[in-house]
Amino acid sequence: MTLQIPAPTPADKFSFGLWTVGWQGRDPFGEATRAEMDPVHALTKLAEIGSYGVNFHDDDLIPFGSDDATRAAIVERFKKGLAETGLVVTTATTNLFTHPVFKSGALTNNDREIRRFALRKVMRNIDLAAELGAQVYVCWGGREGAEYGASQGIAEALDRYQEAFNLLGEYVTASGYDLRFAIEPKPNEPRGDILLPTIGHALAFIETLDRPELVGVNPEIGHEEMAGVNAAAGYAQALWQGKLFHIDLNGQNGPRYDQDLRFGAGNVRGAFWVVDTLLAGGYDGPVHFDFKPARTEGEDGVWASAKACIDNYLILREKAKSFRADPEVQAALEAAKVPELAVPTLAEGEGWRELLDAAPEDPEALAQRGGAFEALDQLALEHLYGVR
Amino acid sequence: MTLQIPAPTPADKFSFGLWTVGWQGRDPFGEATRAEMDPVHALTKLAEIGSYGVNFHDDDLIPFGSDDATRAAIVERFKKGLAETGLVVTTATTNLFTHPVFKSGALTNNDREIRRFALRKVMRNIDLAAELGAQVYVCWGGREGAEYGASQGIAEALDRYQEAFNLLGEYVTASGYDLRFAIEPKPNEPRGDILLPTIGHALAFIETLDRPELVGVNPEIGHEEMAGVNAAAGYAQALWQGKLFHIDLNGQNGPRYDQDLRFGAGNVRGAFWVVDTLLAGGYDGPVHFDFKPARTEGEDGVWASAKACIDNYLILREKAKSFRADPEVQAALEAAKVPELAVPTLAEGEGWRELLDAAPEDPEALAQRGGAFEALDQLALEHLYGVR
Amino acid sequence: MTLQIPAPTPADKFSFGLWTVGWQGRDPFGEATRAEMDPVHALTKLAEIGSYGVNFHDDDLIPFGSDDATRAAIVERFKKGLAETGLVVTTATTNLFTHPVFKSGALTNNDREIRRFALRKVMRNIDLAAELGAQVYVCWGGREGAEYGASQGIAEALDRYQEAFNLLGEYVTASGYDLRFAIEPKPNEPRGDILLPTIGHALAFIETLDRPELVGVNPEIGHEEMAGVNAAAGYAQALWQGKLFHIDLNGQNGPRYDQDLRFGAGNVRGAFWVVDTLLAGGYDGPVHFDFKPARTEGEDGVWASAKACIDNYLILREKAKSFRADPEVQAALEAAKVPELAVPTLAEGEGWRELLDAAPEDPEALAQRGGAFEALDQLALEHLYGVR
Amino acid sequence: MTLQIPAPTPADKFSFGLWTVGWQGRDPFGEATRAEMDPVHALTKLAEIGSYGVNFHDDDLIPFGSDDATRAAIVERFKKGLAETGLVVTTATTNLFTHPVFKSGALTNNDREIRRFALRKVMRNIDLAAELGAQVYVCWGGREGAEYGASQGIAEALDRYQEAFNLLGEYVTASGYDLRFAIEPKPNEPRGDILLPTIGHALAFIETLDRPELVGVNPEIGHEEMAGVNAAAGYAQALWQGKLFHIDLNGQNGPRYDQDLRFGAGNVRGAFWVVDTLLAGGYDGPVHFDFKPARTEGEDGVWASAKACIDNYLILREKAKSFRADPEVQAALEAAKVPELAVPTLAEGEGWRELLDAAPEDPEALAQRGGAFEALDQLALEHLYGVR
Repeated sequence: MTLQIPAPTPADKFSFGLWTVGWQGRDPFGEATRAEMDPVHALTKLAEIGSYGVNFHDDDLIPFGSDDATRAAIVERFKKGLAETGLVVTTATTNLFTHPVFKSGALTNNDREIRRFALRKVMRNIDLAAELGAQVYVCWGGREGAEYGASQGIAEALDRYQEAFNLLGEYVTASGYDLRFAIEPKPNEPRGDILLPTIGHALAFIETLDRPELVGVNPEIGHEEMAGVNAAAGYAQALWQGKLFHIDLNGQNGPRYDQDLRFGAGNVRGAFWVVDTLLAGGYDGPVHFDFKPARTEGEDGVWASAKACIDNYLILREKAKSFRADPEVQAALEAAKVPELAVPTLAEGEGWRELLDAAPEDPEALAQRGGAFEALDQLALEHLYGVR
Repeated sequence: MTLQIPAPTPADKFSFGLWTVGWQGRDPFGEATRAEMDPVHALTKLAEIGSYGVNFHDDDLIPFGSDDATRAAIVERFKKGLAETGLVVTTATTNLFTHPVFKSGALTNNDREIRRFALRKVMRNIDLAAELGAQVYVCWGGREGAEYGASQGIAEALDRYQEAFNLLGEYVTASGYDLRFAIEPKPNEPRGDILLPTIGHALAFIETLDRPELVGVNPEIGHEEMAGVNAAAGYAQALWQGKLFHIDLNGQNGPRYDQDLRFGAGNVRGAFWVVDTLLAGGYDGPVHFDFKPARTEGEDGVWASAKACIDNYLILREKAKSFRADPEVQAALEAAKVPELAVPTLAEGEGWRELLDAAPEDPEALAQRGGAFEALDQLALEHLYGVR
Repeated sequence: MTLQIPAPTPADKFSFGLWTVGWQGRDPFGEATRAEMDPVHALTKLAEIGSYGVNFHDDDLIPFGSDDATRAAIVERFKKGLAETGLVVTTATTNLFTHPVFKSGALTNNDREIRRFALRKVMRNIDLAAELGAQVYVCWGGREGAEYGASQGIAEALDRYQEAFNLLGEYVTASGYDLRFAIEPKPNEPRGDILLPTIGHALAFIETLDRPELVGVNPEIGHEEMAGVNAAAGYAQALWQGKLFHIDLNGQNGPRYDQDLRFGAGNVRGAFWVVDTLLAGGYDGPVHFDFKPARTEGEDGVWASAKACIDNYLILREKAKSFRADPEVQAALEAAKVPELAVPTLAEGEGWRELLDAAPEDPEALAQRGGAFEALDQLALEHLYGVR
Repeated sequence: MTLQIPAPTPADKFSFGLWTVGWQGRDPFGEATRAEMDPVHALTKLAEIGSYGVNFHDDDLIPFGSDDATRAAIVERFKKGLAETGLVVTTATTNLFTHPVFKSGALTNNDREIRRFALRKVMRNIDLAAELGAQVYVCWGGREGAEYGASQGIAEALDRYQEAFNLLGEYVTASGYDLRFAIEPKPNEPRGDILLPTIGHALAFIETLDRPELVGVNPEIGHEEMAGVNAAAGYAQALWQGKLFHIDLNGQNGPRYDQDLRFGAGNVRGAFWVVDTLLAGGYDGPVHFDFKPARTEGEDGVWASAKACIDNYLILREKAKSFRADPEVQAALEAAKVPELAVPTLAEGEGWRELLDAAPEDPEALAQRGGAFEALDQLALEHLYGVR
């Protein structure tokens, strides 16, 4: 029977950024192909397609350099839009990359005055995030990095990044905000190499902070695939370390420029395993789509692609569930000894001494056992194809 | 004046693996092109080219499945070779990948018996490592991974990996061995995706262990470049986190199969920055070359390429020193504000309150400042070219 | 309604190589995990799973260096196996890569004697190919290449490759064989860089030959994806140039080592577009699967994965057909003006003069038209998922 | 003795595009960091740093949509600037990618009216190119491509591309222009996949044109490295096929976004082999640098990086010459049998019959010969390092 795509509900926590649906299509080789989008219009349309939440960079909502009165009026109007649509602000973040002042970095810029300006910009938007009820504050340090080896000392850059997160942790704590940070790693683009290039590097860095419990990661599928690593495995390690505070779902075709395809496009098998991983790991935060509606499209294409992100997630979630529920799959998992990996290697009460004393295994006999992974994976693929 | 390549000395701590110089040239599409190399012959030749240390997988020295008498005789003869050549065993490691029993992994194999066999194999070789004076025990989990998303649960695999390192940490502690572990990350090959694919993932994992202080990383340049990330930046983060316990230097041309070129070949600029990073970070462990002498070569090519690794390191070390000592470079670093990154962003006694209260910066004025990184990098390149 | 996977028929022309199903699982880091497979056993099993054809390298069937009597006996037995199973020999090829003599290349080896030996080896197997009825002779020059820029002159290598194909063209013509050649491009592995790295380079080279009509290409999906280029687009260009003489279908996850996954695994969207391209271009040659059954598997896994290649092709073929037949898709293609690309840009009788004289277009108005590609691609994805 | 960097001369034919030195630093994530540059100012500065030639897209010089009077005034002023500086217009090209009208392609846009508009735009700028004395007309089809498999038929796109080049060939012939075309391949960015992704694909396509002699390639180092293929080998094949009509030199670090680093930065070994290949193949056209001065830089960084491109070419040219002249290198080339590749495989008068009849080689003996490539490559590296 053909799968019916479920309708999205608030419990699904789908969300989009203003910068996503409002992207005008400016790329390194071309001018904008779409007009600016009014944020309140975006709220209305997002609600229509089944979105639960919305996110923004400070400058998405309030143009850089706005005076206080303009700012207040914009925020007021935006709140009204939220109230009217029922949309929730799930996260907020700071734009530390568009303005030329950030051309050589923000929180780790060699120029101390720019670092101070950046910190202030973050704190100001944290206030707004808290006011609007965001619970996660995303930090993508896209300009923290370098093209060349001598341009900045990595150790010093990590010192300054640590200093910044320690200060921000102190700030939200002192302010009584219920807000946690999520670092979004990326290997490169727009800088030749970016600090904390993968989920792993970010997780490792977090452990050095004063308040590691306040900081997790916000991995983006495309960013991990740009490094040629398995995105689902990265999500799984973040979950395992209790650090998957937020997610950015989209599509990418391997190591190349940041494509930001809609979720489902790109590596479709990878997308399936990401969803399966989120279900297995009990992720219950917002399901956020951070893609760019193709520059070739008019506004109808924006909403078609945004809606498709939601549909594809729902389709893949159904498929992941039916895959795990399928008795043939369960038999294949048994055949591949997958459940046995959950059994500790040591028996109850056993230590290295007992292990050394135990009866030896016969490696030649053990080597005869086939993995049975091909049959298992083919079942997964057939679920993906919808032929079982 | 043309740089004279310095002669290697024991203080340089150059080392090679038996598996490196003894590699017979078997690749996925071809048979061995070189004869087996006697380990004691390898010691003699390594000493001749200026090596200080030597390393081995258990099976490099003692064929898999040898009986105790054979083992003892081999070890005896090897010790004699060490004594005669003055070579030091700097590290040892376990072969958990060649024998078919490990085809689906070792310490994280779904099959519990295989995990137990693997742990025992590690412990046995740790004894030998300690006996021979190795201070670092390298762990490359090349078969820990999967081709397909359902083949193993990542969370369960990390549980088992954690269990294994906890047990091994207990073992060396209880045994009174002066031995630390160094995990060697790799993104893929021979598995579709390998657990702990980059330096970052390994550093993050280590923090979850019972004895994190016993475990660091052994990054290989080529493995990081296979993930398209900057190897020098990875080494720098490992140093910054106090975890660079050992290094594997070689060459690679970006994301493709594991080339294991001699050090210096491959990304030559990357090699320069790795050496500069090691000097800046005060790394003082063995300088280990983990490459594969090209399969096209006879034994003369083995030693030519091994010697070239040493020479290239010495050349790049001289270049890195002369780069840092060059007054024009120092001026260019100042112009690029590189030293200013070492200055904390906050003034003495300043917190977030004081920062928010401080006089605001003018982003438009700050944006006018050019980075001056091109001129700086060109100086680095001219040092690399030997034209200054 | 859930798609029923059609049963394979001889008209589908599915084929496999002896080296594929007989692969023993030896990889750069591990020993064989499966026993040698008897070629006649392979025929029986291939027939069982629905294969129409079989292929071989000379050395797959007849061990390198066999004497004439051994050779004759092997060929006799193999012919009998073919007769009993009804399998057809669709192509044959020469192993110019396994034996150490080819370590630095075969037809473009710097060593002229090795080039001569290689040519002779090819001619000898061409005789057998013709005898067994093969119509395409595949040429994968996996060792033609270099690790280093000075190792061979590219111009001289192309001269020698040209000389070789000219000689071989003369040979089959003079021998009256109904046999055409298909060059299989690959960017790297086992050599650092391989001559004719992509479909494009091979197509360009072919035009320089004495008998270009005798030579086409045999593109492998995985090889193109290792270069990060779109495999389907490459197949399409080869078809457009009348040169798609044979195909190698398998799976790969982007630029990394040659994974040789079963067809369908790897880039599943890419696989769909390859099949769609083959249908659109009217390809009617053998549908050949050149993959490696994962090293983790026993013989059951070999046949499960081989069967899965066939099933996945049949599934994707049904999906491509239903995608093209779907009225919503046809409307979306119209909306995206896809059919208009088939209309010449110039009107009947129009030349550059008339074009320059025609009424000018208004670029601002034309720029308003949206591409409508997102909606179209989402329909394709939903066909792939089996939800429409 | 330290190499002195030679001074550039007109005979070196160094050239830069207005779009290169005038790049304002707008990237996918950030606004312009530099002011617009007056084209005549660019000429003055280019002359100062030793440039011989200059190039432009139509819109670089004459803003899109300018009226005829504006156009004439701009051209007049530019000619005066050329006369005053002595700079030569070596090539010109059409901007078919910046304006939104080209968002889904130009010469292969599905929309026929846009294709017609594009053709007209090309012809108009060809007139200007001819008027200003350009001898090569570069064609980079950066928007010819797609993100998705159904967005355009590749065969139809190739038909239209062929139609366009046939028309343009007719146009320059009928107009009596001494102008040849050079197609610039690129695998992706700004489109998901671009038509004619590598040198090879472009060379193959050219052979299908009405006037293949009028069309060659303009390979860019970075574009080839984005596909993970060896740029020097690509240049060599283009030279071998008589099709290297123009070159774009710059720097790139493997498969990732288009970095457009200054020549010498990026893959420095690759740059050396490109220069060696150009010398070996007798390339005598303009030496054009197509890079982007880093966005972090002020105008001083623009000129520092442009000057560095010239210096790095001159340095590498000296190194390539000294490498080839070094007697040790010549001996190493002999040892590696490199000159033997220039010797035909067949003897004078020999054909396949004679070859089959000749005395057989002994593969085991031939396999004993080592390649001696490691020693040779180390000599190359030492020349690159400037230590010999």
